[in-house]
Amino acid sequence: MQTLLDELRHIVGNAHVFTDGDLTAWEQDWRKRSHGKALAVVRPACTEEVARVVKACADYVSANPASGVSIVPQGGNTSLAVGSTPDDSGRQIVLSLQRMNTVRGVDADNLTMTVEAGCILQNLQERAEEANLLFPLSLAAEGTCTIGGNLGTNAGGTQVVRYGNTRDLCLGLEVVTAQGEVWHGLSGLRKDNTGYDLRDLFIGSEGTLGIITAATLKLYPLPAARLTAWAAVPSLEAAVTLLGLAHRHLGAGLTGFEAMGQFALSLVAKHFAQLRVPLHLDAPFCVLLENSDHESELHAHTQFERLLEIALDQGCVTDAVVSETLAQAKQLWHVRESIPLAQALEGLNIKHDISVPVSNIPDFVRATDALLQQALPGVRLVNFGHLGDGNLHYNVQAPEGVDAADFLRDHEARVNTLVFDSVQAFGGSISAEHGVGSLKVDHLAHYKSPVALGLMRAIKQALDPRNLMNPGRVVRV
Amino acid sequence: MQTLLDELRHIVGNAHVFTDGDLTAWEQDWRKRSHGKALAVVRPACTEEVARVVKACADYVSANPASGVSIVPQGGNTSLAVGSTPDDSGRQIVLSLQRMNTVRGVDADNLTMTVEAGCILQNLQERAEEANLLFPLSLAAEGTCTIGGNLGTNAGGTQVVRYGNTRDLCLGLEVVTAQGEVWHGLSGLRKDNTGYDLRDLFIGSEGTLGIITAATLKLYPLPAARLTAWAAVPSLEAAVTLLGLAHRHLGAGLTGFEAMGQFALSLVAKHFAQLRVPLHLDAPFCVLLENSDHESELHAHTQFERLLEIALDQGCVTDAVVSETLAQAKQLWHVRESIPLAQALEGLNIKHDISVPVSNIPDFVRATDALLQQALPGVRLVNFGHLGDGNLHYNVQAPEGVDAADFLRDHEARVNTLVFDSVQAFGGSISAEHGVGSLKVDHLAHYKSPVALGLMRAIKQALDPRNLMNPGRVVRV
Repeated sequence: MQTLLDELRHIVGNAHVFTDGDLTAWEQDWRKRSHGKALAVVRPACTEEVARVVKACADYVSANPASGVSIVPQGGNTSLAVGSTPDDSGRQIVLSLQRMNTVRGVDADNLTMTVEAGCILQNLQERAEEANLLFPLSLAAEGTCTIGGNLGTNAGGTQVVRYGNTRDLCLGLEVVTAQGEVWHGLSGLRKDNTGYDLRDLFIGSEGTLGIITAATLKLYPLPAARLTAWAAVPSLEAAVTLLGLAHRHLGAGLTGFEAMGQFALSLVAKHFAQLRVPLHLDAPFCVLLENSDHESELHAHTQFERLLEIALDQGCVTDAVVSETLAQAKQLWHVRESIPLAQALEGLNIKHDISVPVSNIPDFVRATDALLQQALPGVRLVNFGHLGDGNLHYNVQAPEGVDAADFLRDHEARVNTLVFDSVQAFGGSISAEHGVGSLKVDHLAHYKSPVALGLMRAIKQALDPRNLMNPGRVVRV
Repeated sequence: MQTLLDELRHIVGNAHVFTDGDLTAWEQDWRKRSHGKALAVVRPACTEEVARVVKACADYVSANPASGVSIVPQGGNTSLAVGSTPDDSGRQIVLSLQRMNTVRGVDADNLTMTVEAGCILQNLQERAEEANLLFPLSLAAEGTCTIGGNLGTNAGGTQVVRYGNTRDLCLGLEVVTAQGEVWHGLSGLRKDNTGYDLRDLFIGSEGTLGIITAATLKLYPLPAARLTAWAAVPSLEAAVTLLGLAHRHLGAGLTGFEAMGQFALSLVAKHFAQLRVPLHLDAPFCVLLENSDHESELHAHTQFERLLEIALDQGCVTDAVVSETLAQAKQLWHVRESIPLAQALEGLNIKHDISVPVSNIPDFVRATDALLQQALPGVRLVNFGHLGDGNLHYNVQAPEGVDAADFLRDHEARVNTLVFDSVQAFGGSISAEHGVGSLKVDHLAHYKSPVALGLMRAIKQALDPRNLMNPGRVVRV
């Protein structure tokens, strides 16, 4: 493998091939569930270098089929599904896109921005804002994750109810194929029916079909105002009714709709005493709504008040507050975003990122809660998420007083089976927005239809016949 | 081939296999550019029958590789790209989905509707409206075309600027694969990251990878009001500026943005004397804007007036009218929709369905107009379309007094080359919303990148190794 390493050093320069020292930042996943060993971390500076690196690896593998060499593309390494770190074979190249972080251009008239894969999400949000435009993708890791990773996993986040997932925000891609060729598909077109949808095939393929090196992204006018409301609801049924009212009365102004269970909020109140958690003591769920208005703050406020008045009248909201200032709005979002941290402080837990049709959410939660209580009495459910998209982070915490590590060791597999079976019964997905990675690849083999898996395998084998790209992720061949 | 026909009759019933008589309705394309000869027209009643038909054909072709038998899926047969009619070999089965026209369900809480492929688009719009909801796909053929065809071609239409193409309106699919298996992918999920995006791969594949038999579609709340404005603009640059203002001031209320050249409108005035065509005499282009408002008609009106005031102040609009009644709004749309008919009455013409980035539209039109005038002095340009999506129907009519049929015969190839070369130079697409079909398959081989074509071919061969499904369309293998 020395000849391969020499060639990679020749392509990207000695300074950008790491083989020694502490490579934890590249070898260990975000949640520290896996720490692999890379053959090398390679950091190309441009698309051409990416293509040459892939070509060199492909040629090497063709000549040495037993070498076990393969490529793991990596952005900000914030995968929640163990999708971007090497295994422990010492034969995988981590191909880091971090140096490719140029914004190639903003086209305000076309409402697009063309960016390289290694750009940090937050930097793109800021770059759009400088042009008085909005790039709406927003998620907890935005200060660290890269747009290449967001595209590779089709990341979701908090504004999907209005703007869709990452896939919906992308018009064109530049991709290095598994053969080391470059597909120049950076179109800024909103309509292009010239053949198969290669763009959406690469998006969400988690680096198993090729490497996204750049993208043309959709931008929107920056809203004139963004207001946040916080509503206590008597049930999840009521939350679903409120969602319907919000769609009707706010229209496309509805840019966020997050539901939070009482226990989830009580953990925030417990572990972050300085945060004021509104309205949660007497309600099983609270909902955070965001209204982005293209007219004015006054208009946004009037709209929110009209909606909440109707909802109070109908009984699907029992109490509500609307943020009066930007600081208040931020504080409400901060409460929402503190749930994962509060939960971590409470102890290890079993996380699920699931979705079901919105109309099935109340029944799904009721049924799954009951099954879990029956199987593991006293178990605590940290249930929150993007209800507007049918997406819940349905997390399972050990009963009060039970050691969390012991609980996970003894019950994680059983809890996963129970929750995933229930998700399947309610027509849902066992990975709504985090992707498959290594973590769910075997679950997928069980829960995905054999016909779909067969199609996926055929595509993988057609586009990456050497199984060079991120093998073992998404689908095994 | 008699054994195959017998088996097909056994599967769908004698009454639903047509081999004799006048089959023009299935064998001839919408624009009458091609009249083929089918082995049979087969009309299955359900997904299982579709699967059995495909399986029977696949088995037959495996046993008789030289038979030349293949399948052409067909919906309403309104393709503008000759994509759904058989060739003249007499060996193709037209598989018509027309009998599969059941709406399987409307889920108002989930804002979805699950429908079979043979449903007529207009019936789906009406069915949504009965539930006080909107299915926003809208195009000229909506009274005849089927949703299966819309999905197969990723149809565009007049509301793409807000709601996207058909692809953006679909959450899940049921598909019969080229092997005759059924992929049950009818999810009503807004987030599902469990593997490759099979849905978007089948959408827009024009029946070459499998047969879409049903879909789960997105619905929206019905707007409280829809108003239409008509604005005269001094140039295409001004139209692009107006589009930017409309995005900013109407937000997601902007559901239509159509530009129409002076010559296109003059043909409507000439051939439909009873229609009043506003403001076109003194302006090179007019723009039709639609504002869909979730509040009220009054609010929509106020919004429109504010926008047009700003646009008049900035000089990007020289004059404008806002519809006061629904009848007036319909009449304005009627003028826009009469352009293709008026153009047909004026004589045959060379049609192009192209897109470029919105920001490139003025330069593209200026450059291409000049090239055409230079090559064919006196040529007349019927230029109109969905400017909000960067999509123009850039059609070329013979010079005044020149016989249209002669002009087409002598110059069609040259005009196409000139226009498509220009589209390519401006970063555009030679088929924005109509698809590839037979009509553009050879153009595609020339204008699409070899890497993209290679990926498409690999996918086609992986999913349809017998080349059974609509061969010769989209990509040749």
